[in-house]
Amino acid sequence: MDDITFAVLGTGGIGRRALEVSQHKDALTPVAACDRHGVAIDSAGLDVDELLEATEGNIDSGPQGEDVATDGGAVAEGDGATASGGVKQHGEGEGVVASAQAHPSEDPIQEIIDHGEAIDAVLLALPNYEHDFIPRTADRFVEGGYSGVLIDVLKRSRVIGMLDERSETLEQAGITFVCGAGATPGLLTGAAALAAQSFVEITDVDIWWGVGLESGYEDNRGTVREDIAHLPEYDLETARSLSEDDIEAIVDDHDGVLEFEDMEHADDVLLERAGVCDAADVTVGGVLDVRNDEKPTTTTVRVTGRTFDGETATNTFQLGDATSMAANVNGPALGYLKAGVRRNRAGEYGVVGPAELMPGF
Amino acid sequence: MDDITFAVLGTGGIGRRALEVSQHKDALTPVAACDRHGVAIDSAGLDVDELLEATEGNIDSGPQGEDVATDGGAVAEGDGATASGGVKQHGEGEGVVASAQAHPSEDPIQEIIDHGEAIDAVLLALPNYEHDFIPRTADRFVEGGYSGVLIDVLKRSRVIGMLDERSETLEQAGITFVCGAGATPGLLTGAAALAAQSFVEITDVDIWWGVGLESGYEDNRGTVREDIAHLPEYDLETARSLSEDDIEAIVDDHDGVLEFEDMEHADDVLLERAGVCDAADVTVGGVLDVRNDEKPTTTTVRVTGRTFDGETATNTFQLGDATSMAANVNGPALGYLKAGVRRNRAGEYGVVGPAELMPGF
Repeated sequence: MDDITFAVLGTGGIGRRALEVSQHKDALTPVAACDRHGVAIDSAGLDVDELLEATEGNIDSGPQGEDVATDGGAVAEGDGATASGGVKQHGEGEGVVASAQAHPSEDPIQEIIDHGEAIDAVLLALPNYEHDFIPRTADRFVEGGYSGVLIDVLKRSRVIGMLDERSETLEQAGITFVCGAGATPGLLTGAAALAAQSFVEITDVDIWWGVGLESGYEDNRGTVREDIAHLPEYDLETARSLSEDDIEAIVDDHDGVLEFEDMEHADDVLLERAGVCDAADVTVGGVLDVRNDEKPTTTTVRVTGRTFDGETATNTFQLGDATSMAANVNGPALGYLKAGVRRNRAGEYGVVGPAELMPGF
Repeated sequence: MDDITFAVLGTGGIGRRALEVSQHKDALTPVAACDRHGVAIDSAGLDVDELLEATEGNIDSGPQGEDVATDGGAVAEGDGATASGGVKQHGEGEGVVASAQAHPSEDPIQEIIDHGEAIDAVLLALPNYEHDFIPRTADRFVEGGYSGVLIDVLKRSRVIGMLDERSETLEQAGITFVCGAGATPGLLTGAAALAAQSFVEITDVDIWWGVGLESGYEDNRGTVREDIAHLPEYDLETARSLSEDDIEAIVDDHDGVLEFEDMEHADDVLLERAGVCDAADVTVGGVLDVRNDEKPTTTTVRVTGRTFDGETATNTFQLGDATSMAANVNGPALGYLKAGVRRNRAGEYGVVGPAELMPGF
C-alpha cells in the first residue's frame, strides 16, 4: 500500500496529538492543518515539530469539544493547554497562524478542500460546534469535489444518523466516511468485533470505562454537564438548565466521582451496523473521577456469546490503566484512517463504522 | 461488498467446522469441498447439512493435522470423530464421497482449481502431510491460473517462510495468501495488533494459552509429541525418536499437564510483518492438560508498550475459558477470509498475515 497523506481540521487537543502521533507512523504524511483562523499546507509534508512548538499554548479549541470520543466515552478530549471557549494567544498570530508554515484564511476548510486532490484522508478533529457541524463539513467536501477519506472521532448516535442520511451522496462523491474512530466507539467497538469472532451469536456487549480527569477537569466542564444528563436523576433537559454552581454541587455530592449506567452511546448502533449484535444488546457505562488522574476503574469490553458448539462464554479486552484518553484516541484513529484509505482505494464508499473495518463477518 | 463464495480443501475437523460455521454467516456461500478421495462442487452453494450428515464419522483426516493452529497453538485441531491416520468408512463411499453431492476424483484439488473462476477464496484445511504441502498446493493454484484468496490456519514459522519465498509468484498470479488465520497466530495476533494501537512503541507481546484436551487426546498424539519438543529437556530430534510408550511416560510424569515456555511459533514473525513489534519481543507459551477438557489456564494476550505521552501500560485480551479451540479457529478464519477477499478485490496480492488485516499502522 502506498504512502498516505492526511489533513487535520482543527488543531486543538486531538488535532495536535494526531499530528504528533503521526510522526511515529511510517508512510503517513501530514500535509495540511487548520483551525478557524488559518491553514498550513505543504504537499511535501508539514514540519510537525515547528507547528506544534509555534502554536503551543496558542491554539483554538473553540467551544469545548463536548462531542468528542474519549477513552471513557463521556468526557471530551480536553486540551490542558487551552483556555475555555476560545483562542489562547501568544506571539503574532492567533491559533495555527503562529506557525511559520501557516497563513491566515477567511475560509481555511475551503483551502484544504481545494487541495483535496493531494490529500488521501481528512481527520475532522473539530469541536462539534453544533450537532450538524461535522455532517455539514462533509457536505462541503462533497460540494468541493473531494474524493477520499473523511474520519471523525465523535461518539453521539445522532451525528452518525445525520451522516447516514448522506450516505448515498458520499458514495456518489467517492468519499469513505469513517465515523466514531477514537477510543470509544472506535477502539472499544473494534475490540468487541474482534472478540465476537469466537461466537456465532452475541448475547451481550458490555463496555465499561474509567476516566480520571483531575488535570483536565477545567477544560471539560461542558462535557461533565453532558455526563450529568446520564445520571439517573437527570436528563438532557434538566442538565442543560443547571448553573455552574449546580454542577459543582452535584460533583461535590458525588465526592468527585460520577458513575454512569446505560449511557446513550454510538457503540450500540456501530456494532449493529457491523453485524456484531443488535444495538439493544450493547450496554455502555463507566466511572468519571474529576479529582484524580488515575482511572477509577479499568476500561473493559466484555463480549458474551454462544459458540457454534453450544457453549456460552465471555471474551474480554482491557486497556491498561496508564493509557491516557489521548493515547487511546489517536493511535486507533490513525489506524482506522489507514483502513479507511484502503477501503476508499478499493472503491468502497459511504459511511462506515470502526467495527466494520475489522476482519469478520 | 458482494457475496463471497469459498471452497474447503480437506473435510477433517477444521474443514467440517468451517462449513458448519459458514451457515451462520450471511453472504458466505460454500461452493466446493474435497478430501483426497473426492470432491463436491456446486456453484449455487453446497447443501452443508447433507454433506456433514452423510460424512459424519466417515471423514478422511489423513495423518493427524499436526501443524494446525489451535486455540492454544500447540495442539492440533483434532477431530474427535476421526480414527488416527486414516479414513473412517460407513456406507458406500470413502470420505467426502459418502455425500450425494460428491463424486470420486483422481485429483480433487485440480477439480477445484478448474472451477476457480467461481471461487473467491479457498480455505486450506488440510493436514500438513509434509512441511511444504501447503506451499506446494499454493503452487498448483498458481499454475492452474487461479486468482483469488488462499487461506490457511497453520502456525509454523517455517511454512510462512516457504510462502514468503513464493510471494512474487503469488502477486503476479493475483493471489492473496492469508497465512496462520486460525486461533493462533490468527485471532491472538489480531488482538495484539489491535491492543498495540494505544502505544507508539511495543516492548512486549506475551501470548499465553490454555488447552484442555481430554476428549481430543487420542486424536492428537502426534502433536503432543511435537509439543514435547518444546519442553526444556527435549528438542525436535529427541522428541521424534520417542516411542508411544515414552510419550505416555512423559505425560504421566507431568500428571497430564504440560507447560510450555518460549515456544517457536509464527506469532512472532507475523507480528513483525505487521509492523507491531520485533519478533524477538514476542513470547509464546501455554499449558496443555490432556486429562481435562477444561482449560488449565486462561488464554491471554498481553501487549505492553509506551504511549506517545510517555506512559508504560499493558492492554489485555482474554478468551473465555468455555470457548473451544474450534470456535476460536473457525470464526476468525472466516473473518480473515472475508478481509482477504476484500484485499484481493482491491488488487492487493501476495502473502499477508492476520495482524496485517487489522486496522493500524
